[in-house]
Amino acid sequence: MVFSVTVLGSSSALPTSNRYLTAHVLNVHERFFLIDCGEGTQFQLRKYKAKFSQLNHIFITHLHGDHIFGLPGLISSFNLLGRKHDLHIYAHTSLETILKQFLSNFFTDLNFKIIYHALNHDSNQIIFDNALLTVESFPLKHRIPTCGFIFREKLGLKNIRKDMLEFHKIPVSEILSIKKGNDFIKPDGAVVPNSHLTLDREPGKSYAFCSDTAYLEDFVPYIKDVDLLYHEATFSDQDSERAKETFHSTASQAANIAKLSNAKQLIIGHFSARYKDVTLLVDQARKIFPNTTAAVEGMQITP
Amino acid sequence: MVFSVTVLGSSSALPTSNRYLTAHVLNVHERFFLIDCGEGTQFQLRKYKAKFSQLNHIFITHLHGDHIFGLPGLISSFNLLGRKHDLHIYAHTSLETILKQFLSNFFTDLNFKIIYHALNHDSNQIIFDNALLTVESFPLKHRIPTCGFIFREKLGLKNIRKDMLEFHKIPVSEILSIKKGNDFIKPDGAVVPNSHLTLDREPGKSYAFCSDTAYLEDFVPYIKDVDLLYHEATFSDQDSERAKETFHSTASQAANIAKLSNAKQLIIGHFSARYKDVTLLVDQARKIFPNTTAAVEGMQITP
Repeated sequence: MVFSVTVLGSSSALPTSNRYLTAHVLNVHERFFLIDCGEGTQFQLRKYKAKFSQLNHIFITHLHGDHIFGLPGLISSFNLLGRKHDLHIYAHTSLETILKQFLSNFFTDLNFKIIYHALNHDSNQIIFDNALLTVESFPLKHRIPTCGFIFREKLGLKNIRKDMLEFHKIPVSEILSIKKGNDFIKPDGAVVPNSHLTLDREPGKSYAFCSDTAYLEDFVPYIKDVDLLYHEATFSDQDSERAKETFHSTASQAANIAKLSNAKQLIIGHFSARYKDVTLLVDQARKIFPNTTAAVEGMQITP
Repeated sequence: MVFSVTVLGSSSALPTSNRYLTAHVLNVHERFFLIDCGEGTQFQLRKYKAKFSQLNHIFITHLHGDHIFGLPGLISSFNLLGRKHDLHIYAHTSLETILKQFLSNFFTDLNFKIIYHALNHDSNQIIFDNALLTVESFPLKHRIPTCGFIFREKLGLKNIRKDMLEFHKIPVSEILSIKKGNDFIKPDGAVVPNSHLTLDREPGKSYAFCSDTAYLEDFVPYIKDVDLLYHEATFSDQDSERAKETFHSTASQAANIAKLSNAKQLIIGHFSARYKDVTLLVDQARKIFPNTTAAVEGMQITP
């Protein structure tokens, strides 16, 4: 079962000749979840083979242009492709007004509904929950209200041991119940514990997205033990003053959060255009958190 | 002196994995003039080395999203790059309201002024005139008010013949006047005609941009004898019914306009996503107007 993240853009607000604006796409069992949508996101989604028809949920961290200017074009393309099913957008409550007002100049008749979900920027909350996944948002600290997100894959059905099926003469009608984790009760009333009948499941994976934000430890409890942490590192440690002024993080600060969270892996991104090469930022982060990689367009990570 | 056009996007409203949205950039003596600005235009401008600091004028044919969704991001990048000088946008009068309203959500303080020039969509008009260039707009026929543009390079200064400078003992103070085309009057009152003193200038080049439009012969007089004509060909001749319904043109219709205009060269573009390969469209156009080429991202044409 797939659980993988593709980086669509690694740049901060000013893109460069090889860095696109912020967007990540998470593939969970071939359902696609988009996080942020900078200008050009629809081109990157096509390039890296995300299925438009299986993309129904967009999570927006905050309403700065470099995180949302791709929405009008993506919505237009959905419409031209004949989309009929609902599109869910999770964002600051203002996005609904801004986007509706803007789009009304261009579309009198979208073929599909956009359902806006207003985020709470003061505390954490579960914002999405289905059979595959839960998504929780939590406050970050930026110049305007901003959320981070953590995506947690749900455990799937257990694998049944075929030798036990035969041994206990388990009828077909009982299989789903056992795969869900229940014990098997024999016709004579004897209980066969589920652990005797099934193999351990792979634990569900998790992925946290933290951008844009000043250094903030408050959200560490929400992302504890995350498998993959994306944390912005707009600046190198040398430019920490600029990071502070603009409510962004340095490479070492991103790494500190990864360490405090006990994350398994860290991806840094949202790089300022001033760094042609981000090796220095990766080196700074690795001193604190060795399993750090720089975001690069098209990079696919399976935690 | 440079006079060249670079195609930034060749797609109609739904982009594909290798076709960007509509935008062309005209380089006139290292000054850059942008025509239309679909999503992603700022990436293409960077890729094809247009100088942001020398791009002061943007001409918008009409207010469909695929021709303007790149404006917010481009304006944001201009701002982040520290632009101070005015940006002129020539477009339907509604653009000012739409863009101001949208941008007010993101920028409280642009460093530069945007000067909006409202186009007249009922008749032709000179909309720009400086030492380099004149630009004239003329009505096209689309689902909403739409203009075409013709860019005409002005003739530069003439080259002076050095042998004549010496022969007539022309003082330095007279050189500029002669380069501008004036005769030289000797101290004794004798007139030396300009044609004896200078070499012929290269004629100024011209480039017309006609998209989006149904087949329309009305504007042919405005683009008569143009050096380079870009005309949309959203559809092949087989899809002429669809072209009619959507107020677009077929390949043969574009070629007809080129022939009637006595254009020297035709570029067709704004291709529907239904054509993976546009060879058929080029073949159809060439039957009527042999010097036809398909627009491709990055193609640079010097008429």
